[in-house]
Amino acid sequence: MRVCVVGCGAVGALFAANLAQLDDVEVWAYDVWREHVDAINSNGLTLTGAGEVVGRLRATADPAEIQPCEFGIVATKSMHTGGAVAEVAHAFREGSVCSVQNGVGNEEAIAEHVERVIRGTTFPAGKVVAPGRVQWDVKGDTTIGPFEPRPAPMSEIERLAGACTRAGMPTKAVADARGPQWRKLIFNAATNPIGALTGLTHGRVCEDPALRALVTALVEEGKAVASAQGIQLDEDPEALIDYAAKPDVAYDHKASMLQDVEARRQTEIDFLNGGVARFGRAHGVTTPLNDAVTVLIKGVEHSWA
Amino acid sequence: MRVCVVGCGAVGALFAANLAQLDDVEVWAYDVWREHVDAINSNGLTLTGAGEVVGRLRATADPAEIQPCEFGIVATKSMHTGGAVAEVAHAFREGSVCSVQNGVGNEEAIAEHVERVIRGTTFPAGKVVAPGRVQWDVKGDTTIGPFEPRPAPMSEIERLAGACTRAGMPTKAVADARGPQWRKLIFNAATNPIGALTGLTHGRVCEDPALRALVTALVEEGKAVASAQGIQLDEDPEALIDYAAKPDVAYDHKASMLQDVEARRQTEIDFLNGGVARFGRAHGVTTPLNDAVTVLIKGVEHSWA
Repeated sequence: MRVCVVGCGAVGALFAANLAQLDDVEVWAYDVWREHVDAINSNGLTLTGAGEVVGRLRATADPAEIQPCEFGIVATKSMHTGGAVAEVAHAFREGSVCSVQNGVGNEEAIAEHVERVIRGTTFPAGKVVAPGRVQWDVKGDTTIGPFEPRPAPMSEIERLAGACTRAGMPTKAVADARGPQWRKLIFNAATNPIGALTGLTHGRVCEDPALRALVTALVEEGKAVASAQGIQLDEDPEALIDYAAKPDVAYDHKASMLQDVEARRQTEIDFLNGGVARFGRAHGVTTPLNDAVTVLIKGVEHSWA
Repeated sequence: MRVCVVGCGAVGALFAANLAQLDDVEVWAYDVWREHVDAINSNGLTLTGAGEVVGRLRATADPAEIQPCEFGIVATKSMHTGGAVAEVAHAFREGSVCSVQNGVGNEEAIAEHVERVIRGTTFPAGKVVAPGRVQWDVKGDTTIGPFEPRPAPMSEIERLAGACTRAGMPTKAVADARGPQWRKLIFNAATNPIGALTGLTHGRVCEDPALRALVTALVEEGKAVASAQGIQLDEDPEALIDYAAKPDVAYDHKASMLQDVEARRQTEIDFLNGGVARFGRAHGVTTPLNDAVTVLIKGVEHSWA
């Protein structure tokens, strides 16, 4: 099978390099960063850390080069989903395209350009340290399932999950993938922007009883929005927060949004708290705290202009 | 009459220098900043900007020097009220002490140390530019009235208001000074921390419809807390927000809390949004957005540690 990873940042690279280990999978990577593309084509895509992997694959910054694929795995930042998928959609006329991105709203953006869409949530994480080189920080599971309004066939979803699992990225195919997605969304939306607004690491946000109360109030709004959609969370998002706050896990970790704010990069707020609020409005659930956090982070972004 | 200004920062200096123009008022200033004290004693206290004034007065950093006074005017940052008033309380055994500070809770702190307390709210503003020198940015009115649990006599309040007014600081004595105080509190609590969290100037906070909606939601919580206490606001705080956002007024003004955050100085959050929330709890009104803003600003303060 041929798979194209769309957006070969840290998460995309974990899928691309691991899938490239399989003899029966041909991996492509589409990315606009030319030095990264060139390095991958010259020396392979190298993962270090939680796993040591060198993936041999075909990278390109030219959408026209990409051959027809059975699968796409979209791993761009959420705000770039629509633009990136529009450019490569021709490769997926017969294929299925899966999001492994943060937040909500990505599958909707993908479905504007392709016919068969897979909803996905992934927990592995890392960071790009140099062109062609990615540090693999955290292993973890991925869950994928049909995107309800424009679903990929379940047999295809199982085929992609099987390939990822064989490649060392444990992936489960389920009929309803919304539970894990909303669990991760609620976790991210309750903690990420609080770190970004205060400058505190994850552990310091969660150990402060007053801030933890705000985190929990944000979680409660998210749970209400999930519940109004009939989504059954697979676990309580609070467990993720407790876990990530442990000294040996993420106590000193700066949330990705705090890293974005410090680097003055646009954040994914519209797909995190903004997504919770948007789905809330669509289902008659008010989310005043998620609204507040959204406009505060967007205010921070505006302050750079 | 003898008046001691307690805390001779910008606002204290406006009262001290102007009152020192009156032949029948002897002005003292108590401040812990020795260079400022020395400069005032050597060269007078100089105001420039909205008014050009040089006040000849007696400044000291030694509480024991202060002679018995008919009036105190407390103008420290809110978190220093209790400590400062405790040190100078001996001077006010027969006198009345008035707060002209930001926020709520200052009169309560003063009343722990003196018998007769005056509730006050003032709109003039400026900044200390050098020892003994203050830039007077904005003229404005002051309203004073009895602090209900431990009131100064109305005749004394009128006497202080009369002196301030004659000195060029228009001051009104009223039976209930809570209306103007809560109007200014609600205005400050709705705008100041939003600037501090986002890095945006006052005008940019207020022109952004999404941020302005958050400002208004904070105002609404404040109004509900005022109303639960039976406080009649003298005007709508939104008018202050509209006014201050005008290009020729405060569009490019960084809120004092933003200045504090940029300088990594402790903010007055406990007496602004924290005060709204505290009085809300005491009167059975929930204030989730003021709670959120309070813990976020305190999180920012913790991030410096």
